Amino acid sequence: MTNHILQKIDAHIEQNRAYWQGQLARLCAQPSVSAQNWGIDECAQLVATMLREQGYTAEVLPSDGYPVVVGEGGAGEKTLLFYLHYDVQPPDPLDLWESDPFTLTERDGVLYARGVSDDKGHIICRLAALAAVKEAMGELPCRVKFIIEGEEEIGSPNMPAFVEQHQELLAADACIWEFGGVDYDGRPRQALGMRGICYVELSVQSLSRDAHSGLGGSIFPNAAWRLTWALSTLKDQYERILIPGFYENVLPPSPRDLELLSRLPEEVDELKEMYGVQEFLLGLEGGLPLQRTAVFEPTCTICGLTAGYQGVGSKTVLPARASAKVDFRLVPNQTPQEVLSKLRAHLDGLGFQDVQIQFLGGGRPAKVDPDDPFVQIANETAVDVYGRDPIIEPIIGGSGPNYPFIHTLGLPLVSAGVGYPGSNVHAPNENMTIENFLQGTKHTARIIERFGR
Amino acid sequence: MTNHILQKIDAHIEQNRAYWQGQLARLCAQPSVSAQNWGIDECAQLVATMLREQGYTAEVLPSDGYPVVVGEGGAGEKTLLFYLHYDVQPPDPLDLWESDPFTLTERDGVLYARGVSDDKGHIICRLAALAAVKEAMGELPCRVKFIIEGEEEIGSPNMPAFVEQHQELLAADACIWEFGGVDYDGRPRQALGMRGICYVELSVQSLSRDAHSGLGGSIFPNAAWRLTWALSTLKDQYERILIPGFYENVLPPSPRDLELLSRLPEEVDELKEMYGVQEFLLGLEGGLPLQRTAVFEPTCTICGLTAGYQGVGSKTVLPARASAKVDFRLVPNQTPQEVLSKLRAHLDGLGFQDVQIQFLGGGRPAKVDPDDPFVQIANETAVDVYGRDPIIEPIIGGSGPNYPFIHTLGLPLVSAGVGYPGSNVHAPNENMTIENFLQGTKHTARIIERFGR
Repeated sequence: MTNHILQKIDAHIEQNRAYWQGQLARLCAQPSVSAQNWGIDECAQLVATMLREQGYTAEVLPSDGYPVVVGEGGAGEKTLLFYLHYDVQPPDPLDLWESDPFTLTERDGVLYARGVSDDKGHIICRLAALAAVKEAMGELPCRVKFIIEGEEEIGSPNMPAFVEQHQELLAADACIWEFGGVDYDGRPRQALGMRGICYVELSVQSLSRDAHSGLGGSIFPNAAWRLTWALSTLKDQYERILIPGFYENVLPPSPRDLELLSRLPEEVDELKEMYGVQEFLLGLEGGLPLQRTAVFEPTCTICGLTAGYQGVGSKTVLPARASAKVDFRLVPNQTPQEVLSKLRAHLDGLGFQDVQIQFLGGGRPAKVDPDDPFVQIANETAVDVYGRDPIIEPIIGGSGPNYPFIHTLGLPLVSAGVGYPGSNVHAPNENMTIENFLQGTKHTARIIERFGR
Repeated sequence: MTNHILQKIDAHIEQNRAYWQGQLARLCAQPSVSAQNWGIDECAQLVATMLREQGYTAEVLPSDGYPVVVGEGGAGEKTLLFYLHYDVQPPDPLDLWESDPFTLTERDGVLYARGVSDDKGHIICRLAALAAVKEAMGELPCRVKFIIEGEEEIGSPNMPAFVEQHQELLAADACIWEFGGVDYDGRPRQALGMRGICYVELSVQSLSRDAHSGLGGSIFPNAAWRLTWALSTLKDQYERILIPGFYENVLPPSPRDLELLSRLPEEVDELKEMYGVQEFLLGLEGGLPLQRTAVFEPTCTICGLTAGYQGVGSKTVLPARASAKVDFRLVPNQTPQEVLSKLRAHLDGLGFQDVQIQFLGGGRPAKVDPDDPFVQIANETAVDVYGRDPIIEPIIGGSGPNYPFIHTLGLPLVSAGVGYPGSNVHAPNENMTIENFLQGTKHTARIIERFGR
C-alpha cells in the first residue's frame, strides 16, 4: 500500500509541476529584500494568501522586526513544523544577471530568479509536497504548522524571542528546516546542526579628524595602530583564540560525531580549486582532522578592515578612525553573550578601553541527535528518492536560527530540499534545477508520509 | 645706502602688486595636477615663458617623469638657486570651493585659487622679489638660477636623479626653498630640515576569491589576519619600531638642535583642539620632550587599511586580499632603501613571505647647519620684515626633496615665503593673504640683496 501511495505522490508532484512553477513565479515576482526593507510587508501578505489558497489558516504576526507568517492545517496526534523564510538577499550586482531577478525564467531545465532556491523554492517545495501527500492519502496524515520569517538573510535577530513568546502556537514534534538538497556529486546532504555566531564591529576613534602623518606620526594616537594591536591580541598565528575563557564551554565532538565526520566525502581538491587555497591552516591536508577542524572548532575571522586612505598610490594621512568586522563562529555550548563579555574583559585587561565593540548579530550553536528517529526517517526516505545514502553532517560551518527550535521548542530538525552547490544563493543568477525541485519535493513528501504513520 | 635700496625694493613690490597678482592669476588659470597628469606640459611651457618675459633664459628639460623648468639670469661671483614647483594638488572636492579653483579670486584681502600658495604663489613671489631688487639696484647683485619641477605633489620621485645628472647646470652657493611664511601668531618660520620618507603598501593575497566565513573560517588562510599579524610585528605599543636594525643609523639631535627646539613656541593647546587629541603618545605633555619626539624620531604610521566587507552591518566574508599603506618617516642618516631591505628581512624572518611590499615613494632626510651664514641672512632679514625673531626649526616632521640640494649640490637652504597656517594647501579654498604675499616677497628680496653683497 505504501508503495502505491508513494507512486501517487510522485505522480502528483510530476503532473503538477507547471502549476507549482507558476506559484513560484508569483512568489519570486514579489521582491522581499530584508536588508533594504524592500517589499517585506507585501511578501508576508502574499505568503499568507498562498497558504490560505492551499487550505491552511495563516496569520501575519508582528515581531520586534519584520512580520512572521504562521499557519497550520491537517489533523492528527503528531505535528510537523516547517521553518522557512520569505525574505531574500539583495539582487545586486544587477548587471551580472542574465535575466531579470524578479522574473522567473526557465533555461535548459533550470529556473532562475532571486530566491528561487533560497528560500522561496523551498516554500513552494513544501506546499507541493503537502498537496501531493493530501491528494494521495485523501488527507494529511498529521497536523502541520508553518513559521515563515522575513529576517533570515539579516541574521534572524528576532527569531529566538519570537519562538520563546509563541511556544504554544509553534508546539510540534519535529521540524523540517528551510534548506536541503544535494552535493557536487548529486548525493543528498543531511545537516544536523549549525555553529553559532557572534558578529561584532570593533572600532577606534583616536582623533577628531585625520592628521598629516608628518605632523602627528610621532605624537598622535593612530586609530589604525590601536586597532591592529587590539586585533593581534585576539588570535595567534596557530589559530588559537587568546580571549581568556573563550574555550571553556566548548564541547568536543562525540565519538558518533567523529564517526559521521569520518564518512564525509573528501572535498579537498574542490575547495583548493574553487578558492585557490595553497595550503590549509595548521598544516591540515584532509581527512578527519580537516573535517573536524572545519566545523567543530570555534573561529575568530576578520571579515573586514577599514581605515584611512585606501585608494591608488600614497597619501600621508594618520587615520582618526579605524574599524574591523569580526565574526566568531561558536560551537556547542558557547553563547554570543559570553563571547561579548569575555571580549570586552580581554580588551579592557590589556588597556584597550578605547576599542569600541558594536554587536551586529548573533545566535547560539545547536545540533540534533544524529540517532533521533526523525533523522532516521529523513535519511531513509532520502535513499528512496536519490538512490544513495545521504551525507550526514553532524554540524556545518555556517549559522542559522536553529537553536530556539532545537532547545526552546525541543524539536529534532532535518534538512531536505531543492538546493545544490551551483544554486548561486546570495549571488547573481540564483537558480534551481527542475530535477532538484522534483527530488526535493518527493523527499519532503516522503518525510511527511512516514512521520504521519 | 642699504636702507635706501630696501626702501626702493619695498616700494617696487607694493607698487607692482596688481601686476604680480595678474601674473599669478595667469599661472593659476593653467591647471597642473601632477596626480592626474592634467595640464603638466602646458604649465611647464607657461612657466618657461614667464621666466623669459622677466629676462631670464629658460628651458623645459625632460626628466624620467614630468618636465623640469630650469632658467637663469643675473651675473656675479655667487649664485643663488630657487627650488620651486609648478604642479598642484587635485582641486577635489570641488563642491567645497567658494570660487572656481582655477580662477584667482580676491575676497577681503585674500587671494583664492588652487596653487595660489603651494606653489605658484611662491613662483610669483620669487619673480616679484627679483624684479624689485633689479629695479632698486640697477642689476641683480648675483647670478640666479631656477629649478621648477612638476612632481613635488607626488613625492618628487625623479628629483634626486635629475639633480645628480645636472650638477653643473644647477651649481650654486645657496638655495631658497619652495616654501616659507608665518605661524598661527604671525611669526616667521625658518625650517632647516625635513624628515625622509619610505612609503609602502603591504598586501596579502591568501585566496583566489573571498570565501564564506562559515565555510573557511577554520581552515582557509585569511588575508586580513595575515596582514594584522604582520603589522603587529612592526611596532609595539610603546612606539618602538621592531624591525631589526631600524634605528642603527639614527643620529640623535645635536645640543644645538635641542637648543633650537627648546625655543619653539608651545602649540600643545592648538594641536589638542584642532585634532581632538586627548593625550599625546608616551605620556608626553609638551615642552622639549614633545618637540623632540615630534620631529627627531622616525615613525611607522599605518595610513590606511583595507580588507573584505566595509559597509554597514554584517557580511560573513573571509577576505582573499588585505592591504595596508604604511609611511615610515626617517631622520638623519636613515635611507628609504635600508628601510625597504630591513623590512623585507624582518617579515621573511618571521615567516611573512606572503606579505608583499610595494614601494610607493621615498626620499632621504636632510638638514642644514643652523649656523650657516646663509641661514643667518635669512633670519636677520626676517626680523627686518616681520619685526620679530623667526621660529627656527632644525627639522620638521614632513618630507620633501631637500636631500639632493643639501648633499648632492652641497647648498645651504632656507625657507621664506607667503604661507600661513590658514593657507588650506592641499584642501579646498587654498589661499594667500595679500599681506603675506607682500611680506614674503620683501623677505625674499632682502635675502637676495644681502646674499649678493
